Amino acid sequence: MPKLFEAVPNFSEGRDLEKISRIAGSVRDTPGISVLNLHSDPDHNRSVLTFAGEGEPLLRASIALARACATEIDLAAQSGVHPRMGSLDVLPFVPLGPPLSDTTLEDAAGLARRVGEEIGALGLPVYLYGTAARASHRKNLADVRRGGYEGLLARAEDPLWKPDYGPEEIPPRSGAVAVGARPFLVAFNAYLGTEDIEVARAVATEVRERDGGLPGIKALGLEVGGRAQVSMNLVDLETTPISVALEAVRRSAGRHGIMVESTELVGLLPLAAILEAARHYLTLPNLGPEHVLEAVLWEGRQESRKY
Amino acid sequence: MPKLFEAVPNFSEGRDLEKISRIAGSVRDTPGISVLNLHSDPDHNRSVLTFAGEGEPLLRASIALARACATEIDLAAQSGVHPRMGSLDVLPFVPLGPPLSDTTLEDAAGLARRVGEEIGALGLPVYLYGTAARASHRKNLADVRRGGYEGLLARAEDPLWKPDYGPEEIPPRSGAVAVGARPFLVAFNAYLGTEDIEVARAVATEVRERDGGLPGIKALGLEVGGRAQVSMNLVDLETTPISVALEAVRRSAGRHGIMVESTELVGLLPLAAILEAARHYLTLPNLGPEHVLEAVLWEGRQESRKY
Repeated sequence: MPKLFEAVPNFSEGRDLEKISRIAGSVRDTPGISVLNLHSDPDHNRSVLTFAGEGEPLLRASIALARACATEIDLAAQSGVHPRMGSLDVLPFVPLGPPLSDTTLEDAAGLARRVGEEIGALGLPVYLYGTAARASHRKNLADVRRGGYEGLLARAEDPLWKPDYGPEEIPPRSGAVAVGARPFLVAFNAYLGTEDIEVARAVATEVRERDGGLPGIKALGLEVGGRAQVSMNLVDLETTPISVALEAVRRSAGRHGIMVESTELVGLLPLAAILEAARHYLTLPNLGPEHVLEAVLWEGRQESRKY
Repeated sequence: MPKLFEAVPNFSEGRDLEKISRIAGSVRDTPGISVLNLHSDPDHNRSVLTFAGEGEPLLRASIALARACATEIDLAAQSGVHPRMGSLDVLPFVPLGPPLSDTTLEDAAGLARRVGEEIGALGLPVYLYGTAARASHRKNLADVRRGGYEGLLARAEDPLWKPDYGPEEIPPRSGAVAVGARPFLVAFNAYLGTEDIEVARAVATEVRERDGGLPGIKALGLEVGGRAQVSMNLVDLETTPISVALEAVRRSAGRHGIMVESTELVGLLPLAAILEAARHYLTLPNLGPEHVLEAVLWEGRQESRKY
């Protein structure tokens, strides 16, 4: 079974559509790559590209992407709304598990280090983070990018914050890159039947791991379009799948006398996460990808390539 | 977008594994075909093969299959437990809808007629049924195959029951073939928390279309492994999806004071049916195949073939 990964780079251009198109094109033109999504945010002047493939094509696409960002984006000439540290700012690799492949987080960390080394050789300082980090104080992306480009400059003399690859001096035009590995993450929001943001905040506090809730739930209470929203990141779907997170929100909101009116998903979800929800709510314990016509067809097509 | 179909032929051999393997091999060796499933039943001496592909490969595979069945199976030498009418007994074509393709039931009927004509040219009498039927009294498969091979012989002189293609005389070795088109069908069973088959029968009667229940539900109450089971065929997933059928069973069983303990799925389910269940139970109205990583990857791969 081939090892498949997803890459979710963030780069520091969200306004100039021609530049964005050339940058995304550097990935799209790499053989063996499927571009899954491109989301540009003019307010934050930032884009997020999602693409997938096997290790070698991803390595080549990542190098092409780093080159294109360094060519197209001049960080020094930019207004920095988002605390970015580089033109290609963050480059996480995510393992794609069953039924797509049997890739592990360690595989993704290995790929991130190889990519980091190659990007370093292009003359960009590279900081490894997440499962790819070489020291525990550099695991958390928020710590690595604290203060953005200016923060990196301020820590330049600190031996704890030398780049893993590339020059020690940060080039003002391209900045530096954080390259990492992390598990698949699902952004899942629940809209409550109230305008009272305090209820959303109380529910978020009750369900999130940080405050004693469920493992793998990060949550905030927000007001979105006049409705109270519990905005969640589910970072450990094996332990706390979507159905368990939603039932926790429903119970917690119910204690405040409030219903969950609807939910929304931001970005992509692996088939396994949807099957889990169907298993749970349909009391259908044996439902697996082998029951999904498209998944079977897709595997059959993979196999038929061998002949 | 290519037109994709599924074919679900039933053939009259379920014991001799070498013969079964040669018959299935005739399909598997056809380029452009994905074999999805093969289920052989020694008691009924019958096998069901599921395969998928575009129209032209399916046409070629169907002819190869009809030839292989005629070569391998001698109907006259067989004990006929199942009321079969031919060596290749029934050959339905099913349109595969979004996100796989935009194939319609009319496309499937067109393919069934082309296949029927070619199989007729091989010397086998062909009866079109389902959406492919040319007369309303021949739409229902049960009417076409009534009495099996012997029933066909008894109706041989009746002008209403002449074959659509092929010879009017039924060859005793190969028999005749019913070739048709039908919508995707989901076999979905609910196990009740009781051993009392009468509860399952009452629930089946309440939910099935025939007795005033929901459109597209066929249901029977059975006893399976000491538990009462409501065995369903869902034949119109657009009108009555799985979640609606299951909630109807839960309500009906609840009126008898009984819970649905678990459910099971026989065969394959299109991704769209699973997404519907997730939308319903997660109150996630916008969930579509564009949110499923595998579906997007799969489409991306289709597209990348164009270059």
